Amino acid sequence: MTDIITLTGLVATTPRHIVTSEGLPITSFRLASNQRRFDRTTGAWVDGDTNWYTITSFRQLASNVASSIEKGQRVIVTGAVRVRDWESGERNGTTIEIDAESIGHDLAWGRATFTRQVIAEKPATPTESESAQPTSGPEPF
Amino acid sequence: MTDIITLTGLVATTPRHIVTSEGLPITSFRLASNQRRFDRTTGAWVDGDTNWYTITSFRQLASNVASSIEKGQRVIVTGAVRVRDWESGERNGTTIEIDAESIGHDLAWGRATFTRQVIAEKPATPTESESAQPTSGPEPF
Amino acid sequence: MTDIITLTGLVATTPRHIVTSEGLPITSFRLASNQRRFDRTTGAWVDGDTNWYTITSFRQLASNVASSIEKGQRVIVTGAVRVRDWESGERNGTTIEIDAESIGHDLAWGRATFTRQVIAEKPATPTESESAQPTSGPEPF
Amino acid sequence: MTDIITLTGLVATTPRHIVTSEGLPITSFRLASNQRRFDRTTGAWVDGDTNWYTITSFRQLASNVASSIEKGQRVIVTGAVRVRDWESGERNGTTIEIDAESIGHDLAWGRATFTRQVIAEKPATPTESESAQPTSGPEPF
Repeated sequence: MTDIITLTGLVATTPRHIVTSEGLPITSFRLASNQRRFDRTTGAWVDGDTNWYTITSFRQLASNVASSIEKGQRVIVTGAVRVRDWESGERNGTTIEIDAESIGHDLAWGRATFTRQVIAEKPATPTESESAQPTSGPEPF
Repeated sequence: MTDIITLTGLVATTPRHIVTSEGLPITSFRLASNQRRFDRTTGAWVDGDTNWYTITSFRQLASNVASSIEKGQRVIVTGAVRVRDWESGERNGTTIEIDAESIGHDLAWGRATFTRQVIAEKPATPTESESAQPTSGPEPF
Repeated sequence: MTDIITLTGLVATTPRHIVTSEGLPITSFRLASNQRRFDRTTGAWVDGDTNWYTITSFRQLASNVASSIEKGQRVIVTGAVRVRDWESGERNGTTIEIDAESIGHDLAWGRATFTRQVIAEKPATPTESESAQPTSGPEPF
Repeated sequence: MTDIITLTGLVATTPRHIVTSEGLPITSFRLASNQRRFDRTTGAWVDGDTNWYTITSFRQLASNVASSIEKGQRVIVTGAVRVRDWESGERNGTTIEIDAESIGHDLAWGRATFTRQVIAEKPATPTESESAQPTSGPEPF
């Protein structure tokens, strides 16, 4: 199956936006997700290590991320994990990339105003449809 | 363990914000998450049924949601599932509530501007710390 | 998108196995997932409420579940959430069903022996392929 | 928060079991998770790349994995992601480890018989309690 993960964390680099020669917008940034660890001795949660990810977005999401997300902000990301080995000359290594399906500012850390963007092209990957927009529903509480 | 889920969908009701007599801010709204279904006959993804959830937030997240989220917007939510049976007079039923840990506008559908809010009280639930704020890191690409 | 969740818990009913008139095997059982709650006063984790789910499986998974899973066992389940309203005469309500993609005995609670079953029919839903079976790979540690 | 992921895939190495000098059982193996990719041109799902992970388990889970899991079997795993940089002499790199909370044989691929193991020590990490064992519940269907 597709390895899906949801992350919250800090945007650690200024998002880098490019458009390929085929016209595909791509935006990437590094995300630092600080892990909490349960200390058995003290019975409390303490700061643990930080996981680093490269978050990559495409198409409309990429364009909106480029114009919305800044370094230092808190975000929530969900998407597919891609573990890749790379080689560059004599160096090689492994990177963990998240092919983002959705990204948003984390409202646990601040406020946001939102402006809908018309989606010109049809979403290429399976995603929810525009067609089902309920205008009412059961009220909470 | 805690049943965690991540959802994307449409905010179907105006968020309802209250502050309890103990001073606890709570904000709730209904979320419609339209499911995509893989049609074996046609080999294509088609619109499926819609899952309905009540999304509940507390404390700082509740305050920020109340001032940021509007009915009709697209959001991403992650949090703990609470399946509850209820009774009211002769009626009874089951509800599915999400105790949200993070909520954000879904940038796959629009743009957002973000303003950090100072968090007065310490987060009560285990969450990531403010202490690890890397100011640099490996660049993407 | 599809609302995916992973659960661990106790099989609370004897799995019920049927084969439809079209020859589709279906197996269902109730799962009790006991939630842990973080008590702010004591700073410790305590038992919380229990979430109840109906776990439904189809095809080869359904057959294997029927011959492998018993009431009282601990399992891990991953699959798609289906929130459904139902009516039966004057009664109505909401159920939460998990359309399972994978189910296994939870080895945190016991040991298991596994026998591979030849899959006669091609998996109908998008799933990982049989074709990529690495016979080697980097060793752990 | 803690970065949690659920994976299904093939056990690609014989699980390696050790007991530390402090008496802590640890079992690790490599997991190959074959990704499915949606081909926009053909509108079909095709085999994609394979993600490789090191799955690590501790305590009772480690003991049960060592006596239950064999190379070549299909499993389901849920746990916390740990992205780590390492250095060994002049070489360095990044690894992705999953600190498993639960592991089970994937019944989508075969049958299993399960034997409960008495857990001698109290689970160290927050996990569900033994105390809530419903002996009845709503029947499925």
